[in-house]
Amino acid sequence: MLSREDNARLTDVGPGTPMGATMRRYWIPALLARELPEPDGPPVRVRLLGEDLVAFRDTRGRVGLLDEFCPHRRASLFFGRNEECGLRCVYHGWKFDVDGRCADMMNEPEERQFKDKVFIASYPTVEVGSVVWAYMGPPERKPAPPDFAWTRVPATHIQVSKVIQESNWLQGLEGGIDTSHAPILHRVLKADSARAGFKPKDPFVRGKAPTLEVDVTDYGYCYAGIRPLDDSALHVRAYHFILPFHQIRPSRDEAGVPLIAGHIWVPMDDETTMVYNWAMTARDEPLPEGERLESRLGNGPGDVDQTTFRSRRNRANNYLQNREVQRRETFTGIDGINVQDRAVQESMGPIVDRSLEHLGPADRAVIQARRLLLEAVRSVQDGGAPRGVAPTYYPLRAAEAVVARGTDWRTLLTPQPSAAETVPAG
Amino acid sequence: MLSREDNARLTDVGPGTPMGATMRRYWIPALLARELPEPDGPPVRVRLLGEDLVAFRDTRGRVGLLDEFCPHRRASLFFGRNEECGLRCVYHGWKFDVDGRCADMMNEPEERQFKDKVFIASYPTVEVGSVVWAYMGPPERKPAPPDFAWTRVPATHIQVSKVIQESNWLQGLEGGIDTSHAPILHRVLKADSARAGFKPKDPFVRGKAPTLEVDVTDYGYCYAGIRPLDDSALHVRAYHFILPFHQIRPSRDEAGVPLIAGHIWVPMDDETTMVYNWAMTARDEPLPEGERLESRLGNGPGDVDQTTFRSRRNRANNYLQNREVQRRETFTGIDGINVQDRAVQESMGPIVDRSLEHLGPADRAVIQARRLLLEAVRSVQDGGAPRGVAPTYYPLRAAEAVVARGTDWRTLLTPQPSAAETVPAG
Amino acid sequence: MLSREDNARLTDVGPGTPMGATMRRYWIPALLARELPEPDGPPVRVRLLGEDLVAFRDTRGRVGLLDEFCPHRRASLFFGRNEECGLRCVYHGWKFDVDGRCADMMNEPEERQFKDKVFIASYPTVEVGSVVWAYMGPPERKPAPPDFAWTRVPATHIQVSKVIQESNWLQGLEGGIDTSHAPILHRVLKADSARAGFKPKDPFVRGKAPTLEVDVTDYGYCYAGIRPLDDSALHVRAYHFILPFHQIRPSRDEAGVPLIAGHIWVPMDDETTMVYNWAMTARDEPLPEGERLESRLGNGPGDVDQTTFRSRRNRANNYLQNREVQRRETFTGIDGINVQDRAVQESMGPIVDRSLEHLGPADRAVIQARRLLLEAVRSVQDGGAPRGVAPTYYPLRAAEAVVARGTDWRTLLTPQPSAAETVPAG
Repeated sequence: MLSREDNARLTDVGPGTPMGATMRRYWIPALLARELPEPDGPPVRVRLLGEDLVAFRDTRGRVGLLDEFCPHRRASLFFGRNEECGLRCVYHGWKFDVDGRCADMMNEPEERQFKDKVFIASYPTVEVGSVVWAYMGPPERKPAPPDFAWTRVPATHIQVSKVIQESNWLQGLEGGIDTSHAPILHRVLKADSARAGFKPKDPFVRGKAPTLEVDVTDYGYCYAGIRPLDDSALHVRAYHFILPFHQIRPSRDEAGVPLIAGHIWVPMDDETTMVYNWAMTARDEPLPEGERLESRLGNGPGDVDQTTFRSRRNRANNYLQNREVQRRETFTGIDGINVQDRAVQESMGPIVDRSLEHLGPADRAVIQARRLLLEAVRSVQDGGAPRGVAPTYYPLRAAEAVVARGTDWRTLLTPQPSAAETVPAG
Repeated sequence: MLSREDNARLTDVGPGTPMGATMRRYWIPALLARELPEPDGPPVRVRLLGEDLVAFRDTRGRVGLLDEFCPHRRASLFFGRNEECGLRCVYHGWKFDVDGRCADMMNEPEERQFKDKVFIASYPTVEVGSVVWAYMGPPERKPAPPDFAWTRVPATHIQVSKVIQESNWLQGLEGGIDTSHAPILHRVLKADSARAGFKPKDPFVRGKAPTLEVDVTDYGYCYAGIRPLDDSALHVRAYHFILPFHQIRPSRDEAGVPLIAGHIWVPMDDETTMVYNWAMTARDEPLPEGERLESRLGNGPGDVDQTTFRSRRNRANNYLQNREVQRRETFTGIDGINVQDRAVQESMGPIVDRSLEHLGPADRAVIQARRLLLEAVRSVQDGGAPRGVAPTYYPLRAAEAVVARGTDWRTLLTPQPSAAETVPAG
Repeated sequence: MLSREDNARLTDVGPGTPMGATMRRYWIPALLARELPEPDGPPVRVRLLGEDLVAFRDTRGRVGLLDEFCPHRRASLFFGRNEECGLRCVYHGWKFDVDGRCADMMNEPEERQFKDKVFIASYPTVEVGSVVWAYMGPPERKPAPPDFAWTRVPATHIQVSKVIQESNWLQGLEGGIDTSHAPILHRVLKADSARAGFKPKDPFVRGKAPTLEVDVTDYGYCYAGIRPLDDSALHVRAYHFILPFHQIRPSRDEAGVPLIAGHIWVPMDDETTMVYNWAMTARDEPLPEGERLESRLGNGPGDVDQTTFRSRRNRANNYLQNREVQRRETFTGIDGINVQDRAVQESMGPIVDRSLEHLGPADRAVIQARRLLLEAVRSVQDGGAPRGVAPTYYPLRAAEAVVARGTDWRTLLTPQPSAAETVPAG
């Protein structure tokens, strides 16, 4: 449970809001690199933290991220011509480079052009891990580029996708750092079902409801859900939460081989979120080809329109829930593990009123994330840097295992994340 | 004409509004019994007086009507599992019974569950007359279950349906207790037309514009429209208005045999209404099979989607009005008697501004209904019971007849409704 | 650049707004005459300056333009019966004539009718130039009917159409009196392309960016864009702006023969505009049949639904922009010259925030139009008549030519528009 004031503080991300100012201190995924496949190709609309932007890859391959609207008369640069190291508005031919400088004013005679007096808002970008990231904060506070284990592996070893969620970003994040729901919402009831999810024999399902342990770190926290299996064994899943909106979790491929996976919940605006999904092998090897389709998750091209990034199973069609399947085969009757997540999270409404919640011990990680986010907001308001903006996250990996009672789950993580207030070793 | 304040007082029905509090003192149709055909079947979304609810029939056949949103983290229970005498949220497996008690918290170990501390809003229901009714008011003021002539007849003798109207409820009710419009809006111009409506030879059409007489009763009022046919004869139609939103009217089947019919205008919210339609034979006999299709009214499966209860002829397609048919065959060119009603009532906008009206003597019944509704609001505000909440309405029937001048229309009603302020004999 | 206050002053047109009051002092196109092809035919919905109206042609051929809603109970007269010199509401049969007088009250006995006490808002209309015009201002200030060169030519010599633009009216007008964008936005890159637009060899394209000269007149202004072609020659295009929302421009048919054309940007409401398009031959001769299709402009029946007047290429489908065509063949990759205009103007949002603009010398005509519009608003607020409400515009024609340096473009216009503050000869 949260006060309405704190709820608004966490969920509103537009320009000028406290959380908006906080998020703008981190590098933010703006689009997939493959959306701009070639120099001088078509520009792409980008909505980020309530701002309408346009991205383009210029003649030299650099990615520009500009205010969508031409400063002259405010026509959209989306329809613009991407040519000769700049994006040119089709209305009067004004042209801007990736840094937002005006390079030409086609409607004015050369001698009357006033290019030096005109600017367009532009944000710096970097391409890392198949993603174009933007920095939308004060230039002098720009941190080092994003650097994760998953952004360092070769392209053969990783899959990255995105999909729109029709809710506030925090509903997504809170589902992502909530291991307690996973073997419930994503449960398969029938042992021989071909549908994706956690099967009856899976120790994740066989284990009792979990105890949660949360270790605060400099980047956010590492936490584990610990489930008694029997008198001697425990099932453990350990995740990372990295401020402001990253999750890293253990996963498995279709054959049961361990993967490391994650989501990033990037606010398009207060009521819409672009969810980035990534998965890599836990060992240093190529990702199986089948994993690229993301069909078990419901995030791949079979489920998500790759032009609009809208999910084909969505609120308007009740996610194609099949009540007969729900009765006999899966807990929800909805296909696609992440479609199940979107279904429940979107069903809470655009921005859930957290003052009406009733939380319990199993919500400990969710509660802790809210505390850290509110702390980050205060840090920024006090003129400081928010937690997690500085370190290099490279070594962070997640883990899942069945272990003997008495085993510390922290030993499963390689390298072990450092204790609270300690920067993880880079 | 009505002040804007009184207009809002009559039309706003959400939680906390005066009319909302008043309506919550009556039993309210929530859904058709056939929408929940079997125990443990799929739950159904219900929107009632601005509240989002979910209905389900449990293992023992009881109907639960709960807040749509789980009190834990506010996921929708619509996607829930209906099993073992309760509805279970698919997100974390919390389960609630028809009385709103928490029966399980699947995400918490048994010893940490706090089921006694969690409640979900639930409303008592009864199934009467093929309809599931809900009581949404203070428990200690709950009246006896609804009891009408039409709720007592065997299922073979009655047809009940529902359809969404895209306007405030009062526009529907005011059309329903306005006999003056019927032979105009619903007129068939051509004697040999096969289209539904009142034909030129019908005394209802041949009669002059009516004089209205309204007798206030304990349940609302009984009123008649009296139309001179010639020097010796009158045409009379007598209806009942039962607070807060019931109409009972005379009707006829395709062969002209008398029926008794009615509508109930149940607010889904301020701008949307679920109209319930019922018809029974006036004598104690089965309803002709053809009447079940409701094709003349435009309320049956051929006209209304039986999943969404949206009308196929609607505002977006101008109710498929055919101007050639309007010119030659019917007054409106719109097929379906109740489609014609919805067309004009929805055309007034979501909530008509009654301060702009110009009413005349023919609107006497409409004016009287507003007075009684405002009186009911005051009764509730003063701590009392609104009119019509207590009596048994069983004997109320409507009538239509051609009578000799000088005949009192009240003698047509069997039993005769008692005079004002007298409870009708039960 | 404009203050937000002045921006709202120019763009808000509903009842009671300063610009709304100003526009209501002029004759305003309400619909095409051909939308009401015959007496007693179907009525048509008209949305004008934020008001919902209904138009009908009565038995005697007169066009009535009434409030859409019956004063009795506010049902829409759109569904009404157009018969015997009046429009009759289908709900209770009240009937109104073209002057708004109540002619019958079908639901009341003759002796109780109160027809003299009921009025419906009605606006006078005239049919001129294939258009039905309305006057919505104070009756005592009604000007002489509209009278333009294009409203006087025979029907064989002119084509008039209309199309909805999803933006405020001023964005349309400002595009229409902005000759500087035309050879940019509407440019064809490839000399042998079959697509519509200005080709590389066209002097309009070959000329340098223009100098603008604006002569204020009693009706608004006449202005020219003057483009140096070489040391000896200039390319000149001269347009008229007629208050409050008319443009007259030079055009050419497919074969290059000069036409005179124009647009009228009529606000339906603050965020929606009905654009009227007309074209006539510059000489006194019939318009070529191909011009009636308006396929080069994208305003004809192939591009615009002739029932809804919605453009098939629109914001929702990015105007079917083809990036490959944009790269190689046309500046925008969008087909249809006026579709290109709508694309950029709608892309600015429903009402562009002009306080964020950066205007230059090439925007001189736009700036001057705003000044004249604000002046007209002040005139009305001061109790006077706004500019352009009185004169007869008959002789106004536009011109385009290549002339020797030193030539005054004003000599191209026949007759020459008079200088500022002088009423043009009629």
